[in-house]
Amino acid sequence: VPVPGWVASGLFMVVTLLTDFGTRDSYVGAMKGVILGLAPGARLVDLTHSVPPQAVIPGALILRNAVPVFPSGTVHVAVVDPGVGSERAPIAVFAGDQVLVGPDNGLLHPAAGRLGLREIRRLECEALFRRPVSRTFHGRDVFAPVAAHLVAGIEPERLGPVVPSMEPLSLPECRVDAGEISGEVIYIDRFGNLITNIPGALLAEAGATARFAGGPRLPVADTYSQVASGEPLALVGSWEQLEIAVRDGSAARDLGGEVGSPVTVGRGGA
Amino acid sequence: VPVPGWVASGLFMVVTLLTDFGTRDSYVGAMKGVILGLAPGARLVDLTHSVPPQAVIPGALILRNAVPVFPSGTVHVAVVDPGVGSERAPIAVFAGDQVLVGPDNGLLHPAAGRLGLREIRRLECEALFRRPVSRTFHGRDVFAPVAAHLVAGIEPERLGPVVPSMEPLSLPECRVDAGEISGEVIYIDRFGNLITNIPGALLAEAGATARFAGGPRLPVADTYSQVASGEPLALVGSWEQLEIAVRDGSAARDLGGEVGSPVTVGRGGA
Amino acid sequence: VPVPGWVASGLFMVVTLLTDFGTRDSYVGAMKGVILGLAPGARLVDLTHSVPPQAVIPGALILRNAVPVFPSGTVHVAVVDPGVGSERAPIAVFAGDQVLVGPDNGLLHPAAGRLGLREIRRLECEALFRRPVSRTFHGRDVFAPVAAHLVAGIEPERLGPVVPSMEPLSLPECRVDAGEISGEVIYIDRFGNLITNIPGALLAEAGATARFAGGPRLPVADTYSQVASGEPLALVGSWEQLEIAVRDGSAARDLGGEVGSPVTVGRGGA
Repeated sequence: VPVPGWVASGLFMVVTLLTDFGTRDSYVGAMKGVILGLAPGARLVDLTHSVPPQAVIPGALILRNAVPVFPSGTVHVAVVDPGVGSERAPIAVFAGDQVLVGPDNGLLHPAAGRLGLREIRRLECEALFRRPVSRTFHGRDVFAPVAAHLVAGIEPERLGPVVPSMEPLSLPECRVDAGEISGEVIYIDRFGNLITNIPGALLAEAGATARFAGGPRLPVADTYSQVASGEPLALVGSWEQLEIAVRDGSAARDLGGEVGSPVTVGRGGA
Repeated sequence: VPVPGWVASGLFMVVTLLTDFGTRDSYVGAMKGVILGLAPGARLVDLTHSVPPQAVIPGALILRNAVPVFPSGTVHVAVVDPGVGSERAPIAVFAGDQVLVGPDNGLLHPAAGRLGLREIRRLECEALFRRPVSRTFHGRDVFAPVAAHLVAGIEPERLGPVVPSMEPLSLPECRVDAGEISGEVIYIDRFGNLITNIPGALLAEAGATARFAGGPRLPVADTYSQVASGEPLALVGSWEQLEIAVRDGSAARDLGGEVGSPVTVGRGGA
Repeated sequence: VPVPGWVASGLFMVVTLLTDFGTRDSYVGAMKGVILGLAPGARLVDLTHSVPPQAVIPGALILRNAVPVFPSGTVHVAVVDPGVGSERAPIAVFAGDQVLVGPDNGLLHPAAGRLGLREIRRLECEALFRRPVSRTFHGRDVFAPVAAHLVAGIEPERLGPVVPSMEPLSLPECRVDAGEISGEVIYIDRFGNLITNIPGALLAEAGATARFAGGPRLPVADTYSQVASGEPLALVGSWEQLEIAVRDGSAARDLGGEVGSPVTVGRGGA
């Protein structure tokens, strides 16, 4: 009995999906139907479909945060695409040993940087698309089939021409002054943790206390259990960036934090 | 080393699930456990589990909209089932090159029509069910195991007898008069797009403007980018039906649309 | 053509995930990336990620309710973990022919009892973990990789030492008096069904009526269709425990039920 080609090839590659489509409709399901029709062995993983509609920045941050743990050969399809149908280009970005597929609107930029950008190709080979291409649903008609062809082993050069650069995403960066780091909240997760733009790697140098929105200095803890239940703390969480949290609570709710709220790290106590 | 039978057979068929079970409980997980126990190679895809409880019409529309992109051999399990445990029949519908499994309450009817109805069988072979069959959870005990047996290659005649017809779903149809098409909103998606019952194929004939709820005439655009941000437009979206949308906004919120709101398409401007 | 080892071994084992991580962020996706990197053939099933943050009891009930239908060899990863980073132990529990992986805080206890507890091992082999182990995300760094190693066929003794017992979960138990069973609501599902701690198996003996929160006696029905639309009833649902429900409605909304609301079962009519 012959083994299907894609089994023999070992091409059980992972395809992740990140969109702002939500899960009420069947838009995500349609993308998966297209992918499995072309690449039956693709292993599908949802990163999230709850990016706020057309909110490129949180989508880009979630994607950047997720990619490092995925195995070699993973194809990430990301679609947060206010400009669908207009002139923004569809691209595939080869970064590290993974591939990012989506619109060239900054969404893929932070993840590409994190993985190590290698090559950007503009998706111009319409023979790879689902036809006819809908004006409003490139996720299903452009990005999903291209991801499937990548899983199925297409040569990258068939996707389209190399382009020299991609749209950057301008994110606020933290500022390091003598004795203090000034940053801000860039993302709030499901638990109400306030994730900042201050890399955990900077904290050893800077000291052990953080201030949120001009409030009292908080200990930079190793674990939640270092403070009492209901108390605020700062720690380097799974994003590998400084977070403001409340043990057994929600910093967003209990401290009133928002994206953009200032956070500083200094050496001193009190 | 022997290859497991279902690998050798190439039976990596897709099973989709559409329910009103939500994702808070483990009801969907239980269906998947049953399927993977019987058909380890089944590729599971969630269409949605957020159909409003017992709302057959939106469930049927989402299913109809999703099925065309799925590959040959896909089995769609759909469970929105106010009559579970009562006299409504469980059925399997062979349509196009796919199969629909669920209650005979209209839920499967539009999708069967879209794929091309071939044969309807009443599920009567209790040996295929999970035993004992719960009175309230046919998704787990009847529909999931039947889907798995289909993936595993069971002969259709073992499912039960052919029946001549299925319960129809009465959906509002649009009316074409001289110079005007009158329809209505039948579904509102996550982005607040108001999807109508006016097929896109009719639009070329009818002209280029649409009116929502008696408001001003809107351009029938090709892409969102043809109007300014925040402006309303009409376009043929991924449902291949006329939609009323607001660029970078929500037509449901910004225009106050509801299911049933009237939409007309005419030739004229202003 | 050589078949990849994990295909030849038939190790397409199921890994389920149950967490309080929600689906807005990519925390669940990260766990899946880790698992698929180590065990490409793992079949991933989401039980739920909507356990209320740090709510061990509902998480434990959902897990207990889900496990019986899963096939032999399934590995269930459950993470509702208020004590992450503190002294609570990570464990793997061999129960029936399945494995439960998660924190030793009571979360796994009811499911282990339902499957039949065989052996508990404390996860001490750091070589199996993702390094460095985050202080706040053992789901990704400890539990996900251990589950993957189990799917890949690791010998259980490599995980860590056997421990004699696990943290129990104290759940309210129903009381059987002469002629009456007294219980309470322990879980409310998506449909607003009020699931009690009264096992269905007790009902044949006790009689045919139930009272919710001191209200009128309700028929213990076989199916929803035994009462009129909008009417309350009691029945043994898919949890195999007594539920209070409203046909085509929500008992939680219509009757005002909460976790802890009293339910009694007696013989009488009236």
